[in-house]
Amino acid sequence: MNNSTNITFTKLDHVRELMQTLPASNAAAVEGAQARNSQLTKPPGALGRLEDLAIWYAGWRGTDRPVINAPQIIVFAGNHGIAAKGVSAFPPEVTEQMVMNFQHGGAAINQLAKTFGAKMNVHALSLETPTADSNADLLVTGEMGIGNTTSAAALGMALLGGDAVDWTGRGTGVEGAALQAKTEVVAAGVALHASKGDGLDALAALGGRELAAMAGAILRARVLSIPVILDGFICTAAAACLHVTQNGALDHAVAGHQSNEQAHERMLVALNKQPLLQLGLRLGEASGGALAIGILQGAVACHTGMSTFAEAGVSDS
Amino acid sequence: MNNSTNITFTKLDHVRELMQTLPASNAAAVEGAQARNSQLTKPPGALGRLEDLAIWYAGWRGTDRPVINAPQIIVFAGNHGIAAKGVSAFPPEVTEQMVMNFQHGGAAINQLAKTFGAKMNVHALSLETPTADSNADLLVTGEMGIGNTTSAAALGMALLGGDAVDWTGRGTGVEGAALQAKTEVVAAGVALHASKGDGLDALAALGGRELAAMAGAILRARVLSIPVILDGFICTAAAACLHVTQNGALDHAVAGHQSNEQAHERMLVALNKQPLLQLGLRLGEASGGALAIGILQGAVACHTGMSTFAEAGVSDS
Repeated sequence: MNNSTNITFTKLDHVRELMQTLPASNAAAVEGAQARNSQLTKPPGALGRLEDLAIWYAGWRGTDRPVINAPQIIVFAGNHGIAAKGVSAFPPEVTEQMVMNFQHGGAAINQLAKTFGAKMNVHALSLETPTADSNADLLVTGEMGIGNTTSAAALGMALLGGDAVDWTGRGTGVEGAALQAKTEVVAAGVALHASKGDGLDALAALGGRELAAMAGAILRARVLSIPVILDGFICTAAAACLHVTQNGALDHAVAGHQSNEQAHERMLVALNKQPLLQLGLRLGEASGGALAIGILQGAVACHTGMSTFAEAGVSDS
Repeated sequence: MNNSTNITFTKLDHVRELMQTLPASNAAAVEGAQARNSQLTKPPGALGRLEDLAIWYAGWRGTDRPVINAPQIIVFAGNHGIAAKGVSAFPPEVTEQMVMNFQHGGAAINQLAKTFGAKMNVHALSLETPTADSNADLLVTGEMGIGNTTSAAALGMALLGGDAVDWTGRGTGVEGAALQAKTEVVAAGVALHASKGDGLDALAALGGRELAAMAGAILRARVLSIPVILDGFICTAAAACLHVTQNGALDHAVAGHQSNEQAHERMLVALNKQPLLQLGLRLGEASGGALAIGILQGAVACHTGMSTFAEAGVSDS
């Protein structure tokens, strides 16, 4: 075992230790939000999942009348050596080209960040340590990395079982022989690294830097009590590493959407996360999570801004 | 036949005439938007339904790079004599009380309008004529009216067939004997008015003022080439009157969401409208349609704001 491996294991142990003592949702805030919700000018339950979302958000923010003022989107970008094996419909240099596109404001996620008033950061990863802005009150993590549905598929298989074919999908658009080759790469990767530890070990072995960074950001958000909206298949795979390592580690996260990448549904079911949106997206970049910001903003705005029956002088049922 | 009935029939004939010559989507704008969409920096189809939405919106706005600057929400409120028959969990005076709540900014729809930057108008209807703001570039119509799921259920049955039990749901929360009584009211209403004309006749006989106003606003929006997001069961019932009268009359409208009112799914299927959201809402007030503004804003922002592969210097697949 060489020095760099020693360092890696020591760092993962620090993370494992941190994950033993994650902050919980604030029970008093949840109770207060539930009481308020029952008084608002609408029939009981008539706002459906918006009501659950607002109460969940209130619990993590520690107040019965929360507001969302500072949503934050972070896109992590990383390259994958595996891309040389033809697992993607795009060449590996597209990762860097898309980072430039993010920085110049031309990608889908730039438009969605503007639409929902979210701050957006892009981190092209080499050895950087991901951090979440402690002033944010909502975090969406996303990624860009040619080859990374291959990593995500391998993580799905390693963490949650099943066969390579269950987890391997079209990504940016591979099919036929290329999809078959991608499936074999996933199976070989998992065979090489399987059964060697917990979710963090799997992440280190199969994940890629941007997946590790997303997992780190999601965990850091938990420590700061910042609720998280998960994006698509790759983001969810990174999150699944935390879930498998420590049950409940994703209690502060909701699934923004279910993507068209075929194994995303299977992964969300395994994590017991019901997606907010199902619009056939399969772009990554945090795009589905960003769209769901609007849903959460709407839920929290209703909860905090609506009048009670008493305040409005409306007859209760 | 008395005078007032004569007037009504004359007015409906004017509407029928108008509906023969509705403007179509702009084919050149659709083609231009499709061409642009294929050049944007994403894998083909990766934005899923957002791509279809943006192209559809472009066609109705007559430009291949549309923007949404002025979304408008109109809530029409009306009372229903049928409410005296115990079809609702709330007393009829709640309609007027909720109109006050809308005017004071305390209802769910006020919060959602603010969240998505939409202008909002409330019309408490007596004899007013609904109009759509010609400066709007997106319209969401909604309603408030104790007793109006009963009207909507009767319209569903009269327009689309089936039995009263297929169309009658819990509304604000009726169940047991009250739900049974509501179902009988629906059956009796349809029996009284069935087979006496087209969708507009059904609307006049069974609809209520706020449903007629929503149908009028949706039609007026078509004349002005303003795309429409439909809200829940009652709004969709009003829209269905137009669809039955003139096939294609709702081509400028998308379904914002599928509500928990049980017959909404059946009605959306009959209209061939796939809902954008499915979050268990059953509030009305335009709330589900308003939430979907964010989805359409996101779709149009991506379409119009994203760079092409050539502009961004990103390698195509």
